[in-house]
Amino acid sequence: MTASERMIGEQRPLDVIDLLREIEDIGRDTVRGGYSRHVYTEAELALRAWFRGIAEQLGLEVETDRNGNIWAHWGTRGPNTIAVGSHLDSVPGGGAYDGPLGVTSALAAVSQLMIEGFAPSRPITIAVFAEEEGSRFGVACLGSKLMTGVLPASAAAHLADPAGITYAEACLADGIAPSGLGRDDARLATLAAFVELHVEQGRGLVDLDAPVAVASSILAHGRWKLVFSGEGNHAGATRMLDRRDPVAAMSAAVLATQRIATQHDHPADGNDARATIGRLVPVPGGTNVIASRVDTWLDVRGSTDESTKALLDEVLAACRQAAAEQNCELDVVEESYISPVAFDVALRERLVTTLSTAHTTPPVLSTGAGHDAGILADELPTAMLFTRNPSGVSHSPFETATDDDCRAGAAALAEVLRDLAADPS
Amino acid sequence: MTASERMIGEQRPLDVIDLLREIEDIGRDTVRGGYSRHVYTEAELALRAWFRGIAEQLGLEVETDRNGNIWAHWGTRGPNTIAVGSHLDSVPGGGAYDGPLGVTSALAAVSQLMIEGFAPSRPITIAVFAEEEGSRFGVACLGSKLMTGVLPASAAAHLADPAGITYAEACLADGIAPSGLGRDDARLATLAAFVELHVEQGRGLVDLDAPVAVASSILAHGRWKLVFSGEGNHAGATRMLDRRDPVAAMSAAVLATQRIATQHDHPADGNDARATIGRLVPVPGGTNVIASRVDTWLDVRGSTDESTKALLDEVLAACRQAAAEQNCELDVVEESYISPVAFDVALRERLVTTLSTAHTTPPVLSTGAGHDAGILADELPTAMLFTRNPSGVSHSPFETATDDDCRAGAAALAEVLRDLAADPS
Repeated sequence: MTASERMIGEQRPLDVIDLLREIEDIGRDTVRGGYSRHVYTEAELALRAWFRGIAEQLGLEVETDRNGNIWAHWGTRGPNTIAVGSHLDSVPGGGAYDGPLGVTSALAAVSQLMIEGFAPSRPITIAVFAEEEGSRFGVACLGSKLMTGVLPASAAAHLADPAGITYAEACLADGIAPSGLGRDDARLATLAAFVELHVEQGRGLVDLDAPVAVASSILAHGRWKLVFSGEGNHAGATRMLDRRDPVAAMSAAVLATQRIATQHDHPADGNDARATIGRLVPVPGGTNVIASRVDTWLDVRGSTDESTKALLDEVLAACRQAAAEQNCELDVVEESYISPVAFDVALRERLVTTLSTAHTTPPVLSTGAGHDAGILADELPTAMLFTRNPSGVSHSPFETATDDDCRAGAAALAEVLRDLAADPS
Repeated sequence: MTASERMIGEQRPLDVIDLLREIEDIGRDTVRGGYSRHVYTEAELALRAWFRGIAEQLGLEVETDRNGNIWAHWGTRGPNTIAVGSHLDSVPGGGAYDGPLGVTSALAAVSQLMIEGFAPSRPITIAVFAEEEGSRFGVACLGSKLMTGVLPASAAAHLADPAGITYAEACLADGIAPSGLGRDDARLATLAAFVELHVEQGRGLVDLDAPVAVASSILAHGRWKLVFSGEGNHAGATRMLDRRDPVAAMSAAVLATQRIATQHDHPADGNDARATIGRLVPVPGGTNVIASRVDTWLDVRGSTDESTKALLDEVLAACRQAAAEQNCELDVVEESYISPVAFDVALRERLVTTLSTAHTTPPVLSTGAGHDAGILADELPTAMLFTRNPSGVSHSPFETATDDDCRAGAAALAEVLRDLAADPS
């Protein structure tokens, strides 16, 4: 019997730390460290099955929607629903908290309200979104983008993972028919608000000495695929001056990207700017071979559409120059772009009020990380809670959160749910 | 019935082009283009089986030695043997000629002599060496290095491919017992000379307008693994100035390496210098993740031990500085090093004489590429023939050779064999 089964049997509230422990061995990445739990892989499917099991034991009605997102309903399904949740997939070699902390906190919060005998005046549902990280198919927040139509189903079905498996094929692994992908008006019409709890991906709460924050906004975020092409050749037989080496072109582009983004990044003035190259694949990738091309992915973020475009334009101009200087070519394809998100002000202020005491008020922080709550923000009032991350590190095995802070986050989420679901409006 | 089976049946000499055609569909790389025929993979095992079949049809006695190299003997095995051959494995996404041209030319040459009724005064054997490219286990010329003891068996058995399969485990795929790996004194004692024909890996013969050359020397060649380590973190949430990005460190190292090697590389003065980074793997390698480390492989070549060491020292100092400037760390491990090879002067001059006519003398060229003939050169007289490569490109799908030049190379190899094997000394 697992800890959560025992607690449910004993009518005790689920503990977020026990829940995280139950999945701590699923999807470990023995090469990179941390976890690799990519959508519809064995590990992520195991997490989905685990979530369904816990939710059903709590008496929730579980369904997987047309886009692969899971919903666990408390109360009659219908309009005016309050949704909470996050995602279970990870980046390659990610931490234990990014995603699962939001899902386990939602389970703990709902279980807490049930044990208390709380009778919600409106439906509550726990959401688990598919492919939030975009680690397998290259588009982040894929489940929420499909549900809202931000990404057309026709475009998503043809996305392919590095092994050439299309999203349509991968969906079948969890029984999702590719023909059903796309905007889900009926479901969106039932949702009155969505609150996502997430481990903080920076050191804001460490600096402020607080366990939980409310989110204000998300930076604009885009991804571009840059292919630097030169001439593959022999590493020993090819004279240095005869080369057209795309690894050198890519390298000059990386350094220019770093230099330009650093010039643009002034968080203290409210001008956030980030540009990152963390994924690149030289082809063919042999030690004794000058590469013929390098597939490179550029991640750019900014405070506004205008500032992000200005940063991108400057970076791409420098990348083109880097390619030209090495007699290489550069092809650029936009993979995704999301405008900055300002979370609903009324909902945010309601969360702040709910979580304030006579002595403290939760901090309000922006984030450079994208979230499903940001995608849904165009459709309905959304809000986020952040749980403190002592390392400030994210998308890494060194991401962390203390047990006490995780429990404080889950308790805050329960308070928020209690407030929102008590109000039938 | 294959073309070669028909020719053997009809007592006609094997044609090198027909032989290459028989294997043109084995091990194609649909992602990179060209061929990926790594040692002991399905493709390379298929090539081994194909070679054994042809050799047996020619009446040769085929054996695989303790180190995974194949030998096909014409005549009684014993001392004073003339060996010809090359390898069948490829780099990732390599061409059709690098390796197989030497093996098929050897088959065609032996078949030519047989049809002529030539009676060798000493044994002839065709050699196929294992893992010449080092594409799977990271050490080039592994079969010849094991046979000569240049690489100790204890070190080779623990080499692992990217999937974690050790060389000892992989050997079993062709029935080679790991316990037998190591220097093979008995076999080396039987060999009087080794001649390897290879497609040229440069444009020397194009510039000289000649189909076939004799080799003078091979550059010194080493491989080093460079691991740049920083701090993995979130690409959106981490301010530019807070980063320790190993991709940026690697990039500065790549550009410094290119700059330094270009300064050292003066082929016209006999000072060849090459330094290449064509293989690198960022970890974890996610688009929205600042990498925590980049595994990088450096390939360095030079005309002499001294000049190669000077180049390497300067490159590594620049790589260390690049890492330090990004607040990253750098670990360097030597994976292999081979001193420059000057082929046996007497044997080379004998080949030149044999291949000279009243009107032409074959050019004598050096090469920046390593070969099994270079490894064996410390043990016995070795020589190489090069077949013209119109593109000058190598380790790439664009490597090429005309049918006429391939036949000219095979005919030259037959002449060399006829000369060497006619002489019982």
